[in-house]
Amino acid sequence: MAKAPASTLDNVIALAKKRGFVFPAGDIYGGTRSAWDYGPLGVELKENIKRQWWRTFVQSRADMVGLDSSIILPKAVWEASGHVATFTDPLVECRKCHSRFREDHLLEAFEEKKGRAPEGGLAEVPCPNCGTRGEFTEPQQFSGLMKTYLGAVDNESGLAYLRPETAQGIFVNFLNVVTAARQKPPFGIGQVGKAFRNEITPGNFIFRTREFEQMEIEYFTPPAEAEEHFRTWVEDCWNWFVDLGISEDNLRRFDVPEDERAHYSAGTIDLEYRFGFQGSEWGELMGIANRTDFDLSSHTEASGTKMQYFDQAANERYTPYVIEPSFGLTRSMMAFLVEAYSEDEAPNAKGGVDVRTVLRLDPRLAPVKAAVLPLSKSGDLVPRSEELARELRGFWNVETDVSQAIGRRYRRQDEIGTPFCITVDFDTAEDQAVTIRERDSMAQERVALSQVRGYLAERLAGA
Amino acid sequence: MAKAPASTLDNVIALAKKRGFVFPAGDIYGGTRSAWDYGPLGVELKENIKRQWWRTFVQSRADMVGLDSSIILPKAVWEASGHVATFTDPLVECRKCHSRFREDHLLEAFEEKKGRAPEGGLAEVPCPNCGTRGEFTEPQQFSGLMKTYLGAVDNESGLAYLRPETAQGIFVNFLNVVTAARQKPPFGIGQVGKAFRNEITPGNFIFRTREFEQMEIEYFTPPAEAEEHFRTWVEDCWNWFVDLGISEDNLRRFDVPEDERAHYSAGTIDLEYRFGFQGSEWGELMGIANRTDFDLSSHTEASGTKMQYFDQAANERYTPYVIEPSFGLTRSMMAFLVEAYSEDEAPNAKGGVDVRTVLRLDPRLAPVKAAVLPLSKSGDLVPRSEELARELRGFWNVETDVSQAIGRRYRRQDEIGTPFCITVDFDTAEDQAVTIRERDSMAQERVALSQVRGYLAERLAGA
Repeated sequence: MAKAPASTLDNVIALAKKRGFVFPAGDIYGGTRSAWDYGPLGVELKENIKRQWWRTFVQSRADMVGLDSSIILPKAVWEASGHVATFTDPLVECRKCHSRFREDHLLEAFEEKKGRAPEGGLAEVPCPNCGTRGEFTEPQQFSGLMKTYLGAVDNESGLAYLRPETAQGIFVNFLNVVTAARQKPPFGIGQVGKAFRNEITPGNFIFRTREFEQMEIEYFTPPAEAEEHFRTWVEDCWNWFVDLGISEDNLRRFDVPEDERAHYSAGTIDLEYRFGFQGSEWGELMGIANRTDFDLSSHTEASGTKMQYFDQAANERYTPYVIEPSFGLTRSMMAFLVEAYSEDEAPNAKGGVDVRTVLRLDPRLAPVKAAVLPLSKSGDLVPRSEELARELRGFWNVETDVSQAIGRRYRRQDEIGTPFCITVDFDTAEDQAVTIRERDSMAQERVALSQVRGYLAERLAGA
Repeated sequence: MAKAPASTLDNVIALAKKRGFVFPAGDIYGGTRSAWDYGPLGVELKENIKRQWWRTFVQSRADMVGLDSSIILPKAVWEASGHVATFTDPLVECRKCHSRFREDHLLEAFEEKKGRAPEGGLAEVPCPNCGTRGEFTEPQQFSGLMKTYLGAVDNESGLAYLRPETAQGIFVNFLNVVTAARQKPPFGIGQVGKAFRNEITPGNFIFRTREFEQMEIEYFTPPAEAEEHFRTWVEDCWNWFVDLGISEDNLRRFDVPEDERAHYSAGTIDLEYRFGFQGSEWGELMGIANRTDFDLSSHTEASGTKMQYFDQAANERYTPYVIEPSFGLTRSMMAFLVEAYSEDEAPNAKGGVDVRTVLRLDPRLAPVKAAVLPLSKSGDLVPRSEELARELRGFWNVETDVSQAIGRRYRRQDEIGTPFCITVDFDTAEDQAVTIRERDSMAQERVALSQVRGYLAERLAGA
């Protein structure tokens, strides 16, 4: 019986595990769905995404600065932010769409609508978000916050939380940054880092995990300018993904209706990517929210420190509004992998064609920028290749590969998205040149050894 | 009464807070000594240290690959590694040197030596490490591991630990990396990331915190080569610090005696830096340990997965030894700041001299590479400066600063270690040139606008 054809998503997951982009965390102990480990290629890809994000949104903008705040924050921060209160109810979760609800609220709403209690209990109640019936978990005293204890003894005095978002670390540093970095609204603070949420049902590979990585911006603006900046940020975020290779056909905006938005939000637009999940193909890649002055006001009230900005020119003190573009780093990485995955045909040694798998990653994101391949193990091709690789490694992540036929080695590099394969052959000693093959077109060019660095530098600009 | 002169360390801490390198985490809520936040300059400096480390030890070496494993790992990992067993005794801690001991062991040792129990109890017993008396904390059931709970309900079934070192995430991925990245010993895996230890007495600024960042290498070698690689790694680590500006006068090796080494170690050399703490000036910057086959053997035994390497050429299966160079990233940053801090004299506007504070950071580490300063706010100097800054920001982290006298602005850039100040003046429109001032020599040079990028590129090579 023929197997059902694997989806692109299945193929990407299989490739990611096989080639060392992503491994299940602790898999020799049976693994955990809570987290994943990023292997030699995964860590380079992830770092490249971070670097592009940081360059685009922090370093190259005069109105942005960076921050790296701690994962563990005093519980007072999470009390002020509303996280402690919001996350401690007994909740049921819809297994289908992962929305959580208070059981009593669901039962009340049903009774209000139908005029009677549901006979079958919760099993009869449809999920208010996706409409599915019979998929609620048992109610559980559930906190989305992951706690830990600081100090010598485990008791409430040492209770602290792992941050469920990097955002609050930015808000509590608002005044520090205004003073030390002498910024004035409109300006933003960008941060990349780990966050932790106690998801009941982690899943979909690296899409929903308990440990994950975010790239967040909190952009502080005079209230009157908030709406304009909100719209600009939606465009800027969209363009960032498209510039790095995401097709506009696989990207869409979802204007979150008022009754589905977080309580602090005066407007939220999610960017969704066509991941190709079973059921709904689309998943949230990031969101841009107008958080108004909710956060700074909450922290002002809770801490007694006035989180405001004094505008000297206007002689006016005000609480800035905040526009928050919040990117999932791990989700972005997954989207870039799904987008890049393709299969086409390549000539084989027998004069026919083989199916080849190729990751058409933007060269700026590719984990390995070039592979130096001696055509043969004989002669001095191997040491010559190593010498060239050594020179290039001063600038980029460069691999060498000496085993098996050259075609097999090209296939391996195609599979991991290496933009350039450089072959050192028996003519190299004579003509002081190598053959450079481009990944997508498979076109080959003879390039003088002395020109290789310049050839790559031109084509890897911005990497 | 004159104040005692501040130490360099005090000056560095004050500067770091004032200029936004480091802020106390959650300080609007009274702060916590557990962790620190890295401000706009701190995050750039920290990233630059990471990048230099990654380039030197991972990307530019053919025998190294990278990894980014998760912070939360199944508790089985920490049982196998020995962390769970080692960290759960009732301990007292010496407040002076932070060494921890079992109270009963201390009392027994005293009795054995003196032939009588200490009359004054523990207060009479000197710390076996530093000799101090009367500084032990009360005994506490103390785990250096920070726990958290995964899943819906807080109970032991969901117990997990935040990693106290990144190392174990590397060990459990040994086979994954050998297979996916096709590495064979000797080879190493490098990783940068957060780790968490429940220190009883965090302190000394960012030196001892509960949340910190490590840069670790686990280098897998045939057992017979372990000693040789150990010695080479000690040299390589030493040279890395010196190459980035640490003076050899402020760096020393400490060959840890056998009875002070971790149980798994066949040899440990610490590199210590002269931080200038009160009491002992020196503090541990990093350690290089020969961990033998302890870790891979422990995980083989605990998981049932054979963590060995099969050498095809020799037709032999063996458990590699591991050499571990373990760097403290936050400690490295503190060392680079202390080393760079200096005060000298600079001419002032009145024809005299002022004391100037200057961070003589290696240009590769400097958080801001260049500042573009319009000599005046009048004319078109400000937009001209912004245009130049915009062009340079495509390559480096570049600031502009328009407020106050040029001398004041030089002082500010000197204080944060900016290698180059570029002044746009009233001649710029005419001669299409700017004045570039070098931080350490304060020498000024007139450079054509078209040459500025090349001028910086040459002097910021490797940044």
